[in-house]
Parts: sequence; C-alpha cells; structure tokens
Amino acid sequence: MEVVATDGEARAGVLRTPRGEVETPTFMPVGTKATVKGLTMEEVRRTGAGIVLGNTYHLYFRPGVEVVQEAGGLHAFSGWKGPMLTDSGGFQVFSLAKTRRISEEGVAFASIYDGSPHFFTPELVVEVQEALGADIAMVLDECPPHDADYGYHAESLRRTARWAERCRTAHTREDQALFGIVQGGLHRELRLESLKRTVELDFPGYAIGGLSVGEERGAMLEALAYVASGLPADRPRYFMGIGDPVGVVEVIGLGVDMFDCVLPTRLARHGSALTAAGRLNLKNARFRRDFLPLDPECGCEVCAEYTRAYLAHLVREDELLGHRLVTFHNVYFMEELCRRARAAILEGRYARWAAEWRGRYAGS
Amino acid sequence: MEVVATDGEARAGVLRTPRGEVETPTFMPVGTKATVKGLTMEEVRRTGAGIVLGNTYHLYFRPGVEVVQEAGGLHAFSGWKGPMLTDSGGFQVFSLAKTRRISEEGVAFASIYDGSPHFFTPELVVEVQEALGADIAMVLDECPPHDADYGYHAESLRRTARWAERCRTAHTREDQALFGIVQGGLHRELRLESLKRTVELDFPGYAIGGLSVGEERGAMLEALAYVASGLPADRPRYFMGIGDPVGVVEVIGLGVDMFDCVLPTRLARHGSALTAAGRLNLKNARFRRDFLPLDPECGCEVCAEYTRAYLAHLVREDELLGHRLVTFHNVYFMEELCRRARAAILEGRYARWAAEWRGRYAGS
Ligand SMILES: [Zn+2]
Ligand SMILES: [Zn+2]
Repeated sequence: MEVVATDGEARAGVLRTPRGEVETPTFMPVGTKATVKGLTMEEVRRTGAGIVLGNTYHLYFRPGVEVVQEAGGLHAFSGWKGPMLTDSGGFQVFSLAKTRRISEEGVAFASIYDGSPHFFTPELVVEVQEALGADIAMVLDECPPHDADYGYHAESLRRTARWAERCRTAHTREDQALFGIVQGGLHRELRLESLKRTVELDFPGYAIGGLSVGEERGAMLEALAYVASGLPADRPRYFMGIGDPVGVVEVIGLGVDMFDCVLPTRLARHGSALTAAGRLNLKNARFRRDFLPLDPECGCEVCAEYTRAYLAHLVREDELLGHRLVTFHNVYFMEELCRRARAAILEGRYARWAAEWRGRYAGS
Repeated sequence: MEVVATDGEARAGVLRTPRGEVETPTFMPVGTKATVKGLTMEEVRRTGAGIVLGNTYHLYFRPGVEVVQEAGGLHAFSGWKGPMLTDSGGFQVFSLAKTRRISEEGVAFASIYDGSPHFFTPELVVEVQEALGADIAMVLDECPPHDADYGYHAESLRRTARWAERCRTAHTREDQALFGIVQGGLHRELRLESLKRTVELDFPGYAIGGLSVGEERGAMLEALAYVASGLPADRPRYFMGIGDPVGVVEVIGLGVDMFDCVLPTRLARHGSALTAAGRLNLKNARFRRDFLPLDPECGCEVCAEYTRAYLAHLVREDELLGHRLVTFHNVYFMEELCRRARAAILEGRYARWAAEWRGRYAGS
C-alpha cells in the first residue's frame, strides 16, 4: 500500500496485490457466493470496482471448498480476474447462527443451509481461505453485539487477538496477504488494547470490525477516529461493513482506504437507486412516467440507456433485468463516489467536497 | 417476405419489416413485459434473435399503454431496435382468466393483476397494438381448448373470422403489418374453413393458432401440414407457441417461418439448458464438479466463459446471474438451431439434417 496523498486524515493511495493495483479509497462489491447479485464479473469491472469480496462462510457450504479448489480457485471459478478479498466467515457465524458456542479453540455452530454442526478454528478459516485463493484473507475474529457488556468485550477482544496470532502462524501462502482485525466495541480502552495487540502482530493490513452494527453514528465515528490514528500509516485500512454513501464519505474522511457492504446491491433488489440527489425508491408512483435517466449526473451505461419509467416498470414487475440494471448503477455510484473522494483528497479539498456532496445527497 | 429456397415443404426466406430484415425460419424470444427475462435487448441481439415478441395482454396492464406510448412506443421503451411483433392478447384472455364471457362484440374478462373487469374487442386490440407500435400485430382470435367439441370449434372459428375482418377494417398504421390467424382445432374441415375465411381477407402474413396446446404431437403435425400447404406461398407463416427444439425442427419441415415460445427462457429459470445432446438439468448432482462448458458445441458467450460447475452452483443457489446466463444460452441455442435449419434448407438437405439432429438431441 502506497499512500500518495493525505488531506486531514483522509488518504488517497494505491493498494498493490498479486492481481494488480487498486486505487484507494475503494468500495468492494460483495460477491457473496462467487457472484455479485445479477452481474457478470465483466460488468463488475465496468462499474469501476477494483477489488471484489467473497464470503468464506457461504462459499464453504455452497458450492464447497473442494469445488472451488478443483475449479482452480475463486478467481477461475467466478471469472473475476482482479484482486479479491475473502472474509473469515466469522461475521456470518456470529450473525446468522441461532446458536453458537465459543471456546478458546474456536466456534461451534449450525450451518444455515442444513443445520449441520460445524466448528471453525483460526487454523481452519486460514486453510479454507488459502484454498479459495483470494489475494487478501482475514483472520477469524469475534464480532460481539455492540451492546454486549464491558467484561464480554474485554474477554472477546483478547481471544480475538490470540486467534489472530494463530491465524498468522497457520498462514502459509505468500501470494496472499492476511489482514488483522481490531475489535473492542465502543469502549475506548478496549479498542486501544485490541489495536495494540493486533498491530503488534505486524499484519500487512488492518480491518476495523465491530462497528456499523447498530450503534449510534457519532459513537461509531469516534471509535473509528482513535483506532485509525493508531494504525500504521503504511498499511491499508479496511472498514468492514459500511456502504451507505453518507457513512462512506465520513469514514473516508477518517482515513479508511477500503470498505464493503451489501447495501448498494440489496437496495437495488428492493428498487432503490442511489443518486447524487439522494435515494430514489423506484416503486414510487411518480417514476411511472418519468423518462429521465436514473441519475442524470451519472455516467454509467444504465443511465445512458434506460429511463426511470422503464426501470420502475421492471422493478414493480419484479423482473430480473430490473434488479440487475439497478444493481449495476448502484455499484457504479459507489465506485464513482470513491473516485470523486480520491480526486478531492489529491486536490486537498476533501472536507469541503464532502460537505458539499453531503448537502446534495442528504438534501440538508 | 421473400422465399429464397424451399426444400420439401421447408422454406428459407427473408422477412422484411420497417425495422429491418429477418432471415427465416426464426425463433422469436418472448419479451412478455417489454423484457426478455433477465437479458438486455443488446444481449438478445447477440443471441442472434432477429425479431422479439411482446405480449399485449401484459403490456396493456403493466406498465399500461399510455406509459409505453408516452415513451415513444415499445421499441423506445424497451430499447429493442429491431423488428418486433405483438400478439393480440387473446391467448392470455382465454388461458389466464378464470372466467371470461365471449360475445359477438368481444370478450369480457377479469385482469389477472387486480381482478378488474375488462372488455377486449377486435377494434380495441388493434388500437392497443398500434399504440404499442410493433412492426407486426395480430388479429384478436379465440383459442378454444383442443378438446372442445366440434360445434364449439365451428362457432368459434367463424366468430374469429368475423373478428379478423373487423381487425383489418380497424387497422390504420401502414408501417405495421397485421397478421390473420387460422384456428379450427384438430378438425380437418374446420381448419380448412378457417384457412379459407382467413386467407380471403388477404393478410400480409398468417399465423397458425390453437395448436401445441396439449394435443398429441401427431395430430398437431397433421393439422399443421394441411393448413401450411393451403397458405399463400409468398406470405410469412407463424406457428404460435412452439419452442421445444424437436417440435421446432418438425414445424420448420412443414413450412413454418416464424415461431415463439416461453419454453427456452422458462426452462432456463428452472435450471435446464438446451444442448445438442439434449436437455441438461443443472440441478443434477453430476454437474457440481463438471468443468466443461454448458454445451461444448455451442458458440455462445456463456459457453465460452463459464463452466457447468459454476452455472450449476448459481442455479442451485437461485442466483440471478444463473437464470440470466442460462437464458442467454438457451435463446442462442434456438437461434443457432434456426440458422442451421436454414443452411440445411439452402443446401437441399433438410430432411437428412433434421433426422441426424434429432438423433443426437433425442438420443434415439
Ligand atoms: Zn447510473
Ligand atoms: Zn452456449
């Protein structure tokens, strides 16, 4: 990771991976099961996305690691040729399972697919991610609920730190970077302890986890601010799970380089389009006879070719093409937002740009 | 329509429309609601499709004729630039409505969307189709169940003939061709009576309706054979609603130029792919680790880029991309089948080609 410019806390950089460079800040579309809902990987590329995320939890069960491995890895299986990141599966284990049992050794849980029992250890998730073959892998962490008590957060972050060390030890692929994850909830001392323990392990990149999980926006930004300022400046910083445009502009302002979220693709499937002037709900009656593009300021191929009236019709009728076209636009919108943020950072006017952008978007 | 070659009853031709020429025989993908499920119109073009069908019944309700008209017609609304055909909506009125009441004036029915009462007359469906603006429109016909009794078929075909005349009288757009439809069930005399009455009205093209609706294949082909031989040789012949590849090869052999069916797109959404060696059900376990293309003999972009294992994974997980990619392949398969049929006709070896093709496909 090379930081090419800073502006306040905000950073413009270049992330180097075995499969090419990515300009940061960058939004990683989520390709849960080796597909970004409805789009071909060639289309994902055309949105401007530089790096795609795959979910280890889902891929582990569907289609299964052996199938991906036999295909020659997640790149060959899915057809995405650029950089890719896999998460550890931990977030899904903790958020999807009705019951799970954590021990020092790992976490036992039931598959959401068939209820079968499984046990993830730090070593196993590293092995699985090496088999999937993404360019960046993540350590196994626990993401406790933001309102868990202090004692639980303390215990959890220490276990996560021990798991991180075990992951680092287990990790062997030299063509894959393993990132550490800072946890600790909203408690300053615990965040700083997690930060210190994780940075001591000297990972090539760091994620900030356990934020944007239901807490207040102000508390989230405060926690992010003191974590980000404590991370090594020469390593990429990945904020896990933020994808609402306002939040993205804020976290970039605090020095985040990478982020991911299913929000832009999920919104699209529900008929919501992101635009410079805010969110549009295409199911609203006023779009039935609106022959403008989705976002008149957008340069994407969907906005060049389709009207709101046509897209609104497709969305109302639950037509696959509607989901697909709005998904393309929303991902493009996020990538374009990153490109503009980067340009503003390079020109040293990020704060002003962000305020103006937000004024338009939020109508404030 | 110019017939450029015949081989037995089979014909190779060129259909001329205000929006360009189409080589026949041709399979028309069904764009029910101004979209061919999951595909962009640019992709439909890349399958090799020359002409696309729109369903007047569905478009009348969703998004409504006024919206399409305001958009500048079905071409502008959907983005399809080539020739287009709309049906009259009659087939849906008779097949979808739980109750409908036919009178000399027209047919009363309840919308499948909201149960609201509607009344289609020959004049109305012509007016609607003129507003939609396809290159080819169809007369309003009744399609009785194939097992309706002789008396009913007789009464029905005569009313359909009177409706056809009213449609012709009502039709004003000179840039749109209005096709007649031959009905009459499986009764030879009635088919011939319908044929005579319809041809007397001198339409620029003729459809054969009321076949491929559940009757035996042999009876269908027999009825088609004597109808086709009585149709004017210089007008296009459209067989409504056939899309299984074996049936398509048979009806081309009897002189059909155009046909349509939702089967190839519907099969795709259920995970069935059409291939030279027959249908593949991608949900079958044997495809989970099969890294061949869908159809190794297919030249389509899906077969060039994706494995059965990946497509089977997408289909099993009900991923939009899976539906979309298999739909592309299946439509391409039908268009390629037409291209090969045409080449065989031009070379005067249709019967042999058809037998060989069928041997591979049906494994007989
Ligand atoms: Zn756009
Ligand atoms: Zn193919």
